[in-house]
Amino acid sequence: MQSQTPSLGEFDLIQRFFQTQSELMLANKPGSVKLGIGDDCALLKTDPAEELAITSDMLVSGRHFFADANPEWLGWKALAVNLSDLAAMGARPLGFTLALALPEANSAWLEAFSKGLFAIANQFSCPLIGGDTTAGPLNICITAFGSIPKDKAIRRSGALEGDDIWVSGALGDARLALAALRHELELESGDLEAIAVRMHQPIPRVQLGIALRGIANSALDVSDGLLGDLRHILRQSNKDAEIFLERIPKSTTLRKQSPTIQNQYAASGGDDYDLCFTAASSARDTIIKISNELHLPLTQIGSVKSMQHSAPEIHIIDNDGKEVNSQQAGLLLKSFNHFA
Amino acid sequence: MQSQTPSLGEFDLIQRFFQTQSELMLANKPGSVKLGIGDDCALLKTDPAEELAITSDMLVSGRHFFADANPEWLGWKALAVNLSDLAAMGARPLGFTLALALPEANSAWLEAFSKGLFAIANQFSCPLIGGDTTAGPLNICITAFGSIPKDKAIRRSGALEGDDIWVSGALGDARLALAALRHELELESGDLEAIAVRMHQPIPRVQLGIALRGIANSALDVSDGLLGDLRHILRQSNKDAEIFLERIPKSTTLRKQSPTIQNQYAASGGDDYDLCFTAASSARDTIIKISNELHLPLTQIGSVKSMQHSAPEIHIIDNDGKEVNSQQAGLLLKSFNHFA
Repeated sequence: MQSQTPSLGEFDLIQRFFQTQSELMLANKPGSVKLGIGDDCALLKTDPAEELAITSDMLVSGRHFFADANPEWLGWKALAVNLSDLAAMGARPLGFTLALALPEANSAWLEAFSKGLFAIANQFSCPLIGGDTTAGPLNICITAFGSIPKDKAIRRSGALEGDDIWVSGALGDARLALAALRHELELESGDLEAIAVRMHQPIPRVQLGIALRGIANSALDVSDGLLGDLRHILRQSNKDAEIFLERIPKSTTLRKQSPTIQNQYAASGGDDYDLCFTAASSARDTIIKISNELHLPLTQIGSVKSMQHSAPEIHIIDNDGKEVNSQQAGLLLKSFNHFA
Repeated sequence: MQSQTPSLGEFDLIQRFFQTQSELMLANKPGSVKLGIGDDCALLKTDPAEELAITSDMLVSGRHFFADANPEWLGWKALAVNLSDLAAMGARPLGFTLALALPEANSAWLEAFSKGLFAIANQFSCPLIGGDTTAGPLNICITAFGSIPKDKAIRRSGALEGDDIWVSGALGDARLALAALRHELELESGDLEAIAVRMHQPIPRVQLGIALRGIANSALDVSDGLLGDLRHILRQSNKDAEIFLERIPKSTTLRKQSPTIQNQYAASGGDDYDLCFTAASSARDTIIKISNELHLPLTQIGSVKSMQHSAPEIHIIDNDGKEVNSQQAGLLLKSFNHFA
């Protein structure tokens, strides 16, 4: 971790700043972390009954966030998207490394960034254990680690014919917030504030992922848009799916928009960081119980079918029980490129 | 790992390209990797007798390498600097994640980059297990994982009074190559080719690190320059050091330069990726045996002393057995900022 440490004196401050917060967390709750920041490597103790889940996400200015994004939100979101990946497999967070390229050592920016970062790190008991800082165009790369009991990871490849398809929370709000911020549409007073948090500070569904171990047959987190992401499950499981469009959960704010906007944003808006998972219909009561315990809506939006052709297909069913035609489906499946 | 996958069609090719090579490695030698690229997380099996070492390095264009750097060398070096961190603790490589931001999907660049990357990955049996690709200013972030038998990690904090201080290989060649490439000095015909490989394709001292388990009391890899890096050991161990300047190992190519250049480059040139470690003098025979077995020079350059003041000090001894004065020492300790 020592290669060409930037010579800017302020970078020492950065490291000391992150290191202090990291040490505080580890002192309060060392968990599996045997050694944090300060040596060539961090050290994790391993548990023979557990497997280690690893995920890495890189966030780039202008692509994943606006250049003038609130750094506190950015710190939160950079870890949130990684915790969301851990959640999707049912892993309990253990810790993370942060590699950060910064154009300059701006202490106000850094203070706010680390405030957001450590807020979510503390909320999910996931300490910073190592990393790297360098001068360069703003780039945030987090690698996060979690533990899962042996053979209990929920994979994308496990969907079975007849499984119910579920999603957590409500989808499309992050996309709606983005549209409003870009002035593509206008929201009623107060509505933007209500939904912008979904875009800026998503809540990874960590407790849900853990609760779904042994219950869900497959899962992933919705980051690129529900229907596009669902295809990953179908492709790896060699299955088709049937989705009831109206059942895709939407917030009251999104429901104020036209049906077209509602359906597009909920079906493929992306940036949701809710979980999509499949489970046997015999698990419905258990899943509703989990929903109540976590105070998190879980909605059954369709089911897994046997694959009819050489590639997986999603059959989208409208309010009248009819499959939507290919043109409509194309609009719904259209991938939105948020920052292009 | 799925957040906002770039919409560029070529990025699918990247992912498929890296994924194919990754799958090949895992098929040949699965080791601890239970699940590689393709799900929300990678999965590692854990060994109850081992601890997990984690290190993360971010390489940025213009700072850690020239913008027009040979991508094959870059792929090699990006993993090498991380394996060097694993080596410094005595860890055996298990796998790595790669997060890559690219201004454009240039297939020739990518082919060469991955060629270098997988060449070193194969050489050290360290498979790619996951990661992220995105559009953005060129940025390479690798996080690498290794295993170490419980309580056997070689830390920076373990140096004891009376320990010998050793370094592997020869130092200063990477700095000399950089000086030649920048036309700060001229080398004899053939010399640049001979040493440039030390800058472009350093060999992480993985086997040495493993061999030093239970023998070295402290270690780190020399990346910022020997004397500066040695200070990390001294600071964490609360010790002083005595270094015999002439003993710092230098290549025959570097020895053609002026004594000033020789000493500066070897003592603080950086980018060496050799190991500096301390061990009891009773271990000398064992260390010489390791050196012979690995065909790697190991040179005793000084010793660890008790700390005389409130901060660690390095006493540099010249050929006449006299301590160099503070002005000379300041020149030797001067940190070179390679790409500023």
